[in-house]
Amino acid sequence: MSRVLILSKRAVDYLPLIEAAGLPGLEQMASASSPADALALGEDFDIIFGEPSLIRDVIARLPKLRWVQSTYAGVEPLLDPALRRDYLLTNARGVFGGLMSEYVFGYLLLHERRMFERFQAQQEGRWDRIITGTLRGKTLGLLGVGSIGTVLAGTARHFDMTVRGYTRGSESCPDVNFYCHGAQLPDFADGLDYLVSVLPNTKETIRIVDASLLARLPAHAVFINVGRGSAVDEPALVSALQTGRLAAAVLDVFEQEPLQPGHPFWHTPNLLMTFHTSAPSIPADLARLFINNYRRYAGGLTPLHAVDFEKGY
Amino acid sequence: MSRVLILSKRAVDYLPLIEAAGLPGLEQMASASSPADALALGEDFDIIFGEPSLIRDVIARLPKLRWVQSTYAGVEPLLDPALRRDYLLTNARGVFGGLMSEYVFGYLLLHERRMFERFQAQQEGRWDRIITGTLRGKTLGLLGVGSIGTVLAGTARHFDMTVRGYTRGSESCPDVNFYCHGAQLPDFADGLDYLVSVLPNTKETIRIVDASLLARLPAHAVFINVGRGSAVDEPALVSALQTGRLAAAVLDVFEQEPLQPGHPFWHTPNLLMTFHTSAPSIPADLARLFINNYRRYAGGLTPLHAVDFEKGY
Repeated sequence: MSRVLILSKRAVDYLPLIEAAGLPGLEQMASASSPADALALGEDFDIIFGEPSLIRDVIARLPKLRWVQSTYAGVEPLLDPALRRDYLLTNARGVFGGLMSEYVFGYLLLHERRMFERFQAQQEGRWDRIITGTLRGKTLGLLGVGSIGTVLAGTARHFDMTVRGYTRGSESCPDVNFYCHGAQLPDFADGLDYLVSVLPNTKETIRIVDASLLARLPAHAVFINVGRGSAVDEPALVSALQTGRLAAAVLDVFEQEPLQPGHPFWHTPNLLMTFHTSAPSIPADLARLFINNYRRYAGGLTPLHAVDFEKGY
Repeated sequence: MSRVLILSKRAVDYLPLIEAAGLPGLEQMASASSPADALALGEDFDIIFGEPSLIRDVIARLPKLRWVQSTYAGVEPLLDPALRRDYLLTNARGVFGGLMSEYVFGYLLLHERRMFERFQAQQEGRWDRIITGTLRGKTLGLLGVGSIGTVLAGTARHFDMTVRGYTRGSESCPDVNFYCHGAQLPDFADGLDYLVSVLPNTKETIRIVDASLLARLPAHAVFINVGRGSAVDEPALVSALQTGRLAAAVLDVFEQEPLQPGHPFWHTPNLLMTFHTSAPSIPADLARLFINNYRRYAGGLTPLHAVDFEKGY
């Protein structure tokens, strides 16, 4: 029998969805929206479902903890080496790919179809027949081809694009036309029309998008970051945009969030920012993920999407 | 042996592309960018490749004409009953689907992701975490499911949407979840999240998108027209947008083009206009279409994408 703690700012959304599933082998299910409230519920929970930043403040106090299901893909708060690692940590892989794909291709189309400029013409009463660009035939480079990158690659192929993938070593996505690894990073970037990072925050990914990588992109290229802000050398990106060596960038994530008021990004040309909203957490999606994984757990199987504490994803 | 006339404003782009193909059975190939220049080239042409609006002014003077390949999907100028119809007319079907799909889903994503509002927040220095919408799970209604509608349906399915198709009778696209015909138009429209018209200009399609059809859509719906402007009752659309009974509309085509300076659309809220640019003609695409069709013609086969003069498409 299991005792489940839902520890989430959206606990009120998750609880009824999970209750409605009628999960087997459940001795107790409780919910809280803060660590303090959670600790007041007792110490006997073996399962937690919720946000890593809240969960990190309770795990030391739950001796029976065996499994944590994160509602996020990124689980940095739980990777601190000072924290315990004697439990199974699973993340929200496989949930956000479709939403990320909508975001990435939406912004690429905004750029190619010059939607802002077209609207400007409309407001000025101009019948503006300027010909716009297209995704077809373009080359997309994916920094990271995990569950999200795989969906992005599929959408790129749907739009008749060529896809390059840069990974640590895996080459599992059939929609990637060719892969690069390790020291092949400059070749990977050479001549890309679009560079999209879905990289997690790890030792190896820190500032991987730096001045030398950006210099490999043609001046018409667009960079999009939907992974983690730490992957970008932010001053180098500002410089590339200010000097026109890069056509545009779209950032959903930043080294420090929220972005500080004095940050140069607020006044960098050809930069669009979306404030960590690219893949909104839809309660029904995440509840379904937990329910499916719980059924595996209750049936003696290992829940899916385990995080490797060393790799960080 | 054939004599080919290229009659197009972009003749200078098409000529070298077609010459490079080394077409068989070619006695003469000439190009002109106006009807007057074309007529000065002689009267012996049996094939014309180009724009219908230019071609209409020369067909009466070319006694040997057997085949016209339009560079456009819409061929209205050649459908005038006063004009001759004793030749094969083929249009540019199958070329524009991918471009139309980029346009339609680009604008749907602009809407769902509130890209204008998000940019507004950025300009105001606000860390705006408002949650935006998604295409997933939405229902798209296609008015017309020919070669373009089929591509749109495929993209909708890629984004996990449901697709309804309204056609004269055909039910050939496997990505359409269900079809409606004729008097089922109100049922077709009922509760759609997005309504997209790709209808050609025919007797049956005139003002099919009228007040009663728009009234069937929920207030959060978006209407997009990439077919022909004649399919829309323009005052009814203005009214639906002004009163908030329709969330937004995106129009690429209009009853009269260019749109007149005094037209109410210039000041209608929640309306985006793009001035007949949704599917730009890419010379290489259209040259390839002509080359492939010419090879059929030269080999004794009928060129593809014949237009039915009565139906109008």
